Amino acid sequence: MTVFRESLKVHSTGLRPTFFTLTEQVQEIIDRSGVKNGICVVYSHHTTCSVMTQESSFDIAYTGLEYLQQDLTDVLENIVPTCRKEGQYMHPGPLLTEFAAEHGESKPETLNTDAHLRSVFMGRSETIVVIDGKLDLGAYGNVYFIDFDTTRPRDRTVQVQIVGE
Amino acid sequence: MTVFRESLKVHSTGLRPTFFTLTEQVQEIIDRSGVKNGICVVYSHHTTCSVMTQESSFDIAYTGLEYLQQDLTDVLENIVPTCRKEGQYMHPGPLLTEFAAEHGESKPETLNTDAHLRSVFMGRSETIVVIDGKLDLGAYGNVYFIDFDTTRPRDRTVQVQIVGE
Amino acid sequence: MTVFRESLKVHSTGLRPTFFTLTEQVQEIIDRSGVKNGICVVYSHHTTCSVMTQESSFDIAYTGLEYLQQDLTDVLENIVPTCRKEGQYMHPGPLLTEFAAEHGESKPETLNTDAHLRSVFMGRSETIVVIDGKLDLGAYGNVYFIDFDTTRPRDRTVQVQIVGE
Repeated sequence: MTVFRESLKVHSTGLRPTFFTLTEQVQEIIDRSGVKNGICVVYSHHTTCSVMTQESSFDIAYTGLEYLQQDLTDVLENIVPTCRKEGQYMHPGPLLTEFAAEHGESKPETLNTDAHLRSVFMGRSETIVVIDGKLDLGAYGNVYFIDFDTTRPRDRTVQVQIVGE
Repeated sequence: MTVFRESLKVHSTGLRPTFFTLTEQVQEIIDRSGVKNGICVVYSHHTTCSVMTQESSFDIAYTGLEYLQQDLTDVLENIVPTCRKEGQYMHPGPLLTEFAAEHGESKPETLNTDAHLRSVFMGRSETIVVIDGKLDLGAYGNVYFIDFDTTRPRDRTVQVQIVGE
Repeated sequence: MTVFRESLKVHSTGLRPTFFTLTEQVQEIIDRSGVKNGICVVYSHHTTCSVMTQESSFDIAYTGLEYLQQDLTDVLENIVPTCRKEGQYMHPGPLLTEFAAEHGESKPETLNTDAHLRSVFMGRSETIVVIDGKLDLGAYGNVYFIDFDTTRPRDRTVQVQIVGE
């Protein structure tokens, strides 16, 4: 039985929700682990990010997002609208603003309530079954990491934890 | 420590979201695995399907769905309306349509954008705790596999991966 | 390789969705397990509850909820409105009502359709990566257990299952 972990680093644009395709990198970590059967947990260290597994949509929108990623972003915009000013949501409140300032975060940078809530809806991890050393993603499946924070560009860490044999 | 996996096969109707009750079959796989304590990952190989754990609702709607399944379908219809024609969502776009045609999929069969997005919201797997050899589902809990694709009947594979001892 | 599990008990108010902060208790279970690297599954035994990992919001609303918890509750109210009377959702139906009565549950206590559906959306578990013996939650991350059932106060069980070495 093996427990094997590596981290991946990505850098978001901050302009809109950023989707990173990590399929090959996650598969390479499985290859290095030597695990043939088990589970692979792809996990966001950050509370404004998510992981999803989906097909590639081929077509690319003007925003740079694949069509299905744009559709997902549109649906999320209906459920959890982009946070454009204080008071739109209860968070960030005065205590949070003070705490953030003490830790070097400006007021505009705390306006990521939408990203926190979207991360909650989408979940912070995906657990993928590993069969014969391969991610069982379906014929055209991919692993995507999503950064929903659009207040600024961010460095992000993705954990890939494999348990199996 | 044991890593044990079996697959289940189901066949959807294509008429509406299809719910399959897999509780007994998943429990039988745990029995065969010999695992007493650990986790059981019930996982959809497909990007238009999901797994959920919920109670049986007893009453059956005219659609054949249990009442709670119908309620869930109604809520999802509000968030991610059924895809009825091209242009309603960005996906499927021209490149996807061409790629699909090359792989034997007709235009109507690509109109499953709603199923992809619903699968993303609901997630493609559930991780269930196994205690003393039993799924810890609560008194009346069930494991359901959902196929959201209503473009045609489909053969579907569900992976049941158990890790424990 | 270790498989280690403990249960936590909480008691909800029934007045509104109740959020319990379990971060320290879950970390203490990891400490007792001796696991340094692996995964920790925090799991709701109940079909009207969920687990989420998010940051503390510091500010507290009049309802007693942290601001971000209140924002989440507001978003969920839009998607899955609180069940206020029979007929609002299909569930509970006549067979369920009869079954519930036989098991000591009154009609008002079956009006928790919203809680079942919210639990489905939010998921019943979170899988958290454990690194060097610590939950990898991010700088200010917490583990929350949520009871969405507002029909009455309830005793609830949270399972913490750890797999690793």
